Amino acid sequence: MTHSILVLNGPNLNMLGTREPSIYGNETLAEMEKILQALSKEHGLGVTFFQSNHEGAIIDKIQQSKNVARGIIANLGGFTHTSIAIRDAFLSSGLPVLEVHVSNVAKREHFRQKNYLSDIAVGSISGFGIFGYQLAYLAFLKLLPTPPP
Amino acid sequence: MTHSILVLNGPNLNMLGTREPSIYGNETLAEMEKILQALSKEHGLGVTFFQSNHEGAIIDKIQQSKNVARGIIANLGGFTHTSIAIRDAFLSSGLPVLEVHVSNVAKREHFRQKNYLSDIAVGSISGFGIFGYQLAYLAFLKLLPTPPP
Amino acid sequence: MTHSILVLNGPNLNMLGTREPSIYGNETLAEMEKILQALSKEHGLGVTFFQSNHEGAIIDKIQQSKNVARGIIANLGGFTHTSIAIRDAFLSSGLPVLEVHVSNVAKREHFRQKNYLSDIAVGSISGFGIFGYQLAYLAFLKLLPTPPP
Amino acid sequence: MTHSILVLNGPNLNMLGTREPSIYGNETLAEMEKILQALSKEHGLGVTFFQSNHEGAIIDKIQQSKNVARGIIANLGGFTHTSIAIRDAFLSSGLPVLEVHVSNVAKREHFRQKNYLSDIAVGSISGFGIFGYQLAYLAFLKLLPTPPP
Amino acid sequence: MTHSILVLNGPNLNMLGTREPSIYGNETLAEMEKILQALSKEHGLGVTFFQSNHEGAIIDKIQQSKNVARGIIANLGGFTHTSIAIRDAFLSSGLPVLEVHVSNVAKREHFRQKNYLSDIAVGSISGFGIFGYQLAYLAFLKLLPTPPP
Amino acid sequence: MTHSILVLNGPNLNMLGTREPSIYGNETLAEMEKILQALSKEHGLGVTFFQSNHEGAIIDKIQQSKNVARGIIANLGGFTHTSIAIRDAFLSSGLPVLEVHVSNVAKREHFRQKNYLSDIAVGSISGFGIFGYQLAYLAFLKLLPTPPP
Amino acid sequence: MTHSILVLNGPNLNMLGTREPSIYGNETLAEMEKILQALSKEHGLGVTFFQSNHEGAIIDKIQQSKNVARGIIANLGGFTHTSIAIRDAFLSSGLPVLEVHVSNVAKREHFRQKNYLSDIAVGSISGFGIFGYQLAYLAFLKLLPTPPP
Amino acid sequence: MTHSILVLNGPNLNMLGTREPSIYGNETLAEMEKILQALSKEHGLGVTFFQSNHEGAIIDKIQQSKNVARGIIANLGGFTHTSIAIRDAFLSSGLPVLEVHVSNVAKREHFRQKNYLSDIAVGSISGFGIFGYQLAYLAFLKLLPTPPP
Amino acid sequence: MTHSILVLNGPNLNMLGTREPSIYGNETLAEMEKILQALSKEHGLGVTFFQSNHEGAIIDKIQQSKNVARGIIANLGGFTHTSIAIRDAFLSSGLPVLEVHVSNVAKREHFRQKNYLSDIAVGSISGFGIFGYQLAYLAFLKLLPTPPP
Amino acid sequence: MTHSILVLNGPNLNMLGTREPSIYGNETLAEMEKILQALSKEHGLGVTFFQSNHEGAIIDKIQQSKNVARGIIANLGGFTHTSIAIRDAFLSSGLPVLEVHVSNVAKREHFRQKNYLSDIAVGSISGFGIFGYQLAYLAFLKLLPTPPP
Amino acid sequence: MTHSILVLNGPNLNMLGTREPSIYGNETLAEMEKILQALSKEHGLGVTFFQSNHEGAIIDKIQQSKNVARGIIANLGGFTHTSIAIRDAFLSSGLPVLEVHVSNVAKREHFRQKNYLSDIAVGSISGFGIFGYQLAYLAFLKLLPTPPP
Amino acid sequence: MTHSILVLNGPNLNMLGTREPSIYGNETLAEMEKILQALSKEHGLGVTFFQSNHEGAIIDKIQQSKNVARGIIANLGGFTHTSIAIRDAFLSSGLPVLEVHVSNVAKREHFRQKNYLSDIAVGSISGFGIFGYQLAYLAFLKLLPTPPP
Repeated sequence: MTHSILVLNGPNLNMLGTREPSIYGNETLAEMEKILQALSKEHGLGVTFFQSNHEGAIIDKIQQSKNVARGIIANLGGFTHTSIAIRDAFLSSGLPVLEVHVSNVAKREHFRQKNYLSDIAVGSISGFGIFGYQLAYLAFLKLLPTPPP
Repeated sequence: MTHSILVLNGPNLNMLGTREPSIYGNETLAEMEKILQALSKEHGLGVTFFQSNHEGAIIDKIQQSKNVARGIIANLGGFTHTSIAIRDAFLSSGLPVLEVHVSNVAKREHFRQKNYLSDIAVGSISGFGIFGYQLAYLAFLKLLPTPPP
Repeated sequence: MTHSILVLNGPNLNMLGTREPSIYGNETLAEMEKILQALSKEHGLGVTFFQSNHEGAIIDKIQQSKNVARGIIANLGGFTHTSIAIRDAFLSSGLPVLEVHVSNVAKREHFRQKNYLSDIAVGSISGFGIFGYQLAYLAFLKLLPTPPP
Repeated sequence: MTHSILVLNGPNLNMLGTREPSIYGNETLAEMEKILQALSKEHGLGVTFFQSNHEGAIIDKIQQSKNVARGIIANLGGFTHTSIAIRDAFLSSGLPVLEVHVSNVAKREHFRQKNYLSDIAVGSISGFGIFGYQLAYLAFLKLLPTPPP
Repeated sequence: MTHSILVLNGPNLNMLGTREPSIYGNETLAEMEKILQALSKEHGLGVTFFQSNHEGAIIDKIQQSKNVARGIIANLGGFTHTSIAIRDAFLSSGLPVLEVHVSNVAKREHFRQKNYLSDIAVGSISGFGIFGYQLAYLAFLKLLPTPPP
Repeated sequence: MTHSILVLNGPNLNMLGTREPSIYGNETLAEMEKILQALSKEHGLGVTFFQSNHEGAIIDKIQQSKNVARGIIANLGGFTHTSIAIRDAFLSSGLPVLEVHVSNVAKREHFRQKNYLSDIAVGSISGFGIFGYQLAYLAFLKLLPTPPP
Repeated sequence: MTHSILVLNGPNLNMLGTREPSIYGNETLAEMEKILQALSKEHGLGVTFFQSNHEGAIIDKIQQSKNVARGIIANLGGFTHTSIAIRDAFLSSGLPVLEVHVSNVAKREHFRQKNYLSDIAVGSISGFGIFGYQLAYLAFLKLLPTPPP
Repeated sequence: MTHSILVLNGPNLNMLGTREPSIYGNETLAEMEKILQALSKEHGLGVTFFQSNHEGAIIDKIQQSKNVARGIIANLGGFTHTSIAIRDAFLSSGLPVLEVHVSNVAKREHFRQKNYLSDIAVGSISGFGIFGYQLAYLAFLKLLPTPPP
Repeated sequence: MTHSILVLNGPNLNMLGTREPSIYGNETLAEMEKILQALSKEHGLGVTFFQSNHEGAIIDKIQQSKNVARGIIANLGGFTHTSIAIRDAFLSSGLPVLEVHVSNVAKREHFRQKNYLSDIAVGSISGFGIFGYQLAYLAFLKLLPTPPP
Repeated sequence: MTHSILVLNGPNLNMLGTREPSIYGNETLAEMEKILQALSKEHGLGVTFFQSNHEGAIIDKIQQSKNVARGIIANLGGFTHTSIAIRDAFLSSGLPVLEVHVSNVAKREHFRQKNYLSDIAVGSISGFGIFGYQLAYLAFLKLLPTPPP
Repeated sequence: MTHSILVLNGPNLNMLGTREPSIYGNETLAEMEKILQALSKEHGLGVTFFQSNHEGAIIDKIQQSKNVARGIIANLGGFTHTSIAIRDAFLSSGLPVLEVHVSNVAKREHFRQKNYLSDIAVGSISGFGIFGYQLAYLAFLKLLPTPPP
Repeated sequence: MTHSILVLNGPNLNMLGTREPSIYGNETLAEMEKILQALSKEHGLGVTFFQSNHEGAIIDKIQQSKNVARGIIANLGGFTHTSIAIRDAFLSSGLPVLEVHVSNVAKREHFRQKNYLSDIAVGSISGFGIFGYQLAYLAFLKLLPTPPP
């Protein structure tokens, strides 16, 4: 996955499309991946995908991405609001991170307003369904030097 | 495990009986399982058991129980107070959840008063030792239509 | 009422069945009493009932139950969240108390999360409608020595 | 009292006129009742009056007014800030409630800013002395269909 | 506008009738003005009207009303909860102010519970739609000496 | 009870001596009354006693004491921390109040640190068992003019 | 401006490019407008621009956009964190709003974490400099039906 | 000072009588000492006096009183609310402490409600002027065994 | 106004002298301006004046002062406690700001303790009436290099 | 020191000039004293100086200044934020106090925002280095009657 | 690992030496292990090592260490501040725990001040880089009886 | 004391060994000093000792240690949680400070969790009795260059 963008999805995002569709919409993670792969072909900036319900697996993945990936698009799901360990892994990796949320988190429960990721991310996109991943990909195209250093 | 109740136990509940007995009592998880299996035979509503110290494994299990189990009796132990990701998994599963605690949580530390499960559960039972699981089983007998739809 | 369990209901529980049925259900206090009397016949542990909208009357009743009743099943309604004086009466009586709530209190208003009873109760049952009283009765059968000392 | 408005006054309002007149003014509850009775004659919407220092008696009264009175003008005095049980009684009755305060509560102690009534009332009037009851009566004339359904 | 009551409306109240009618009702500011003008003719106490979406314009207006108007009926809309400067203008004017809200503010968002006006007003009326302005006018008739001093 | 001191005891103080003796001691309310009657004989300042578990009855009693008693020694028990209505009754009576607590309230639960009485009392005595009532009586001897005005 | 998107900028955004460039970057509002006009030509969805340092002028503009514009891209600058009146104007307009911030607000002062816009917006984009407006335009292309209804 | 009571006064109490007399009264520390010396003669329980504006000197004094004095009557003035070090000295000494305040602290500023002494004292007396010291002396007569052990 | 100091006054400061004189004194803004003009003549550092009740007008003025004025003496009145937008304008201007308050803000309401200006100002002067502006002028004489760079 | 101004400096201010110069500047307390002595010669209002690291010594000094000094210029350093006892000494002295801080306290740590002095001072000056003492001296010239009463 | 000390490291500590070296230093976990093995040889108290990014794996390890290890040196990294489940595992194991942090946690983010480990540890060492593990080893030599019981 | 380490002990630490031994252990300050003197002989890094109950004396000592001592081992006792002035003295001295606590402060009262020292210290050691001073000495050996610069 060298020189590609890691698209990292946290717990329950594998259920996208069937999970509380009034909040998260009907589109699945697979559909999102297809769209990003198409964009990747068009623009030449590679994408790899990783989803896990395990906080430790996500940390392992981030550590392995150091010196390999060029950046991370991250939707941490419920870990967004509770995991200092993942935050530390991001800081440790030194990689630029773009935060994506499928739903508009600001509309939701009080405990979802606490966020351990957004203040260390480059930027944040929320509320646009899986289209948000596409916007994040475009943002990386804008942010990253071409070709990779 | 189709049409059965999943009895889901979180971290350190495998140590029941030896773990701080002045708080948690002397009975073990195995003894609880035996009692519930006997009830299951008597009443015909099946039970399956799962215990893990891994948050991710618990989320995986809940996702797999969707469309399979008829309900969940959950004692999340320490994850009760910290895991938004498990809460999201319960909501994503659409299954009715009954919360059980072996000890009376209201008597304990301040940080155990924060609870991410009870407001999405059907109901809550705490303070009755492993007998609480038995009460939860009886509650499911009352709550669920017979036979399963 | 010697050697029996006092089933103590607080303010507005006399309106059960007609009161906000989407929250409290359609069953009445009378139906609950009938069910517990049947259980009492079956198991031999007597039950007496008391309901009042008056905090002082509830305190008087608890004081009179000392040395008379063997335990109390208490649903204090709105007093659960405001009455230190009833809490003191329970402590003064020395009797074991089981807390019952018809609705799942954890789902409701912020001010209902303050609770002066649960940390001095043996245990707590909420969210199961009037079936919760039945579960509490079963719990007393389990908890109390037979015959009464 | 069928088809009339219940004017419900809480603790210490029987002392109106002599009680801290710099805050509550010099007019008495009797004078207010006379004025509302005159209005009642003029407009045909009956009024009945109830004052008590006992929270339980107020709850009993609200319960008895269900299906009898057409609405309640309520000044709960000190219970405004402490009684969840009276709030529950109002909700249980299903009657429209107008909140009145003789003094401007917003000017007073911090603990009087907590209010268990106003968010379940139709509306609130405070700071106009006993004239506030008259305004509330006029508001009921406006709000209620004629004749009673 | 000498010797008259200034009816002062803040931001978005010009949209009354079309703005979120489930909260604010269907009646317009123009209808309210017509009603108050009729009352004014009947009772001889004049009314003038001012609405602005500009905090500064509201402050200017209050300053100009000093020594001119006899009192102010104020519905500050969103500025109620944020403007210390308008509060200061009221205090600086020395005029009696009656606070009116079309909706029952106590039922609404948490941030609408902070209020910089009500503790310096004579009194407050909320939840009665545009009828609240009429009640406030009646209150001024009661409060002000006749004829103006 | 003209020209005497009212010794007012709130909920559960009738259980003194048997109630949680490690906190409240072994002496009863009757013993306290005997001691104060002896002091009264010696010093000529009369005492009358009232205890109730009913908030409303306490408010009624305070209202009746206005213009009758010369002062009040009050131990409100659990109502100390919850009753704004009793506070209002004291303020309405205009009588000097001395607050007494049998136990040292500052050593106890967090919710007992909220106090609606002490800031309107002349002074406060706590932690000396029933001897505190005796100290309060001595304080009244010091505070009140002789003979009564 | 019928059938176009209003790009609404709040206080100090006219200084973009010269204002604290380490936080806000070197690009100006004029450059952003040029880019969006080019996109508008390409995609056929019109854009109009409005910037003001006056809260009242922003509210006036939003009210005028009702029934005229198809949506709003809003960067309210400092008003994001303080203006309930602008929030009310958005709600009153019924138009979909996309929130943009040039800097990553989550990295900044504590008082910038309070936000009166994001929970009523469709979605939010922050931290991508003026490129964020471009992403918001793309999001509107995705969100709005073609042609305008 | 063996077998006597140490009367310990903190900062600014040497100014008693001249210091803000509307709060602290007109009587001086010297007058208080005279009264306690008289009581001491009458009852045989000795008293010694110490006042200092220096926190360190007060700690030194408490340390020296260990194994020497039989108890301490302490009015720590402003140190009551700020000195953990004096609290530690009292705990280290093992001596019983009675807290006295000349004014009714509960009536005063918010920051005077924080108290590092009262929860480790036997009891507390406040609001009775210098008469409070006399009450504390009487309380020690009651509390201490005779003769000293 | 090149090379001069801008003396910027916020809402209601045009009412100085007549506005709540017990808090703000009897001197007017015109008197202050006269004094500063005299000082300006004496010391050669020019002064210009601006007062507005409009937040937007103040922001416009600050933006126009960039590269023109040498510094700002600012008394923002009520906007001190609510305007992040003015704070941003000051930061955007890069000019040194001295904060002045006529009254001693620390003595006043709780909501006046929140301050969006003082932590970005060079320094702060409050409580000296209009003499505070004179002290601020002297401070600028001390702070600014001579002649202007 | 009769009829003079006491310039009172608290802990660590004797280190001025060498102590964290990026915060406190390079000028020493001795330089400040020289400047004030010069001013004193010029204007005839005497100055005396006192610095101590001992809270008790500062209290002693304030008590001794009563009836001797005409006012106090106070920079309490770290005691500003922790000493209620010094606050009480100022109140007890009855002398007017002007608060000075060398640094701009509003820019600094959260715990330095708590202040026990400023609300009882006449006014406050901070952020101007040792020049602030000079401004305070000028303020006293303005505030005090000539000659001393 | 019988009779040895378990050195337990949490998430991201495997990155030590390369991870944010300005905070965590340049030394690696391997270097720490070498040093502790040398100490172990010298003093005879064995050491075993475990690092994981998985909360569940850490809990499993602690459970397995019960009755096997003699104590635990724990640096839980980000889990220190979020994991109640690990805390429960420590309590369940009954083993003495010494807490180590490489950086001085007290200097860092607000959310790192919440700590679920230190109040159940024997003691805590932070801020000394990997030398802290060495100090903890020395502390265990001091604390544990020789030979193991 | 040139080139030595100052071991600085705050209030009540002179009572070590006799003071609440269940919390602080049985060892005295003298025993600690003997152990550190032995270590000093062994390693050549000198130690000097200072204990005081006086905050001012501790500040004086720290100021005098500047340019004299090479570092400070500080156990401030109760001053840890209340003294900003001592914190300022440490910062002013520029010396490295190691914080030691005899007991595990994290286990103790809520008010002992506030700490003005640890975030400016190099590191912190708590819970190891007087052995903690020895660990701190070893840490200084590790931290300081040899020989002194």
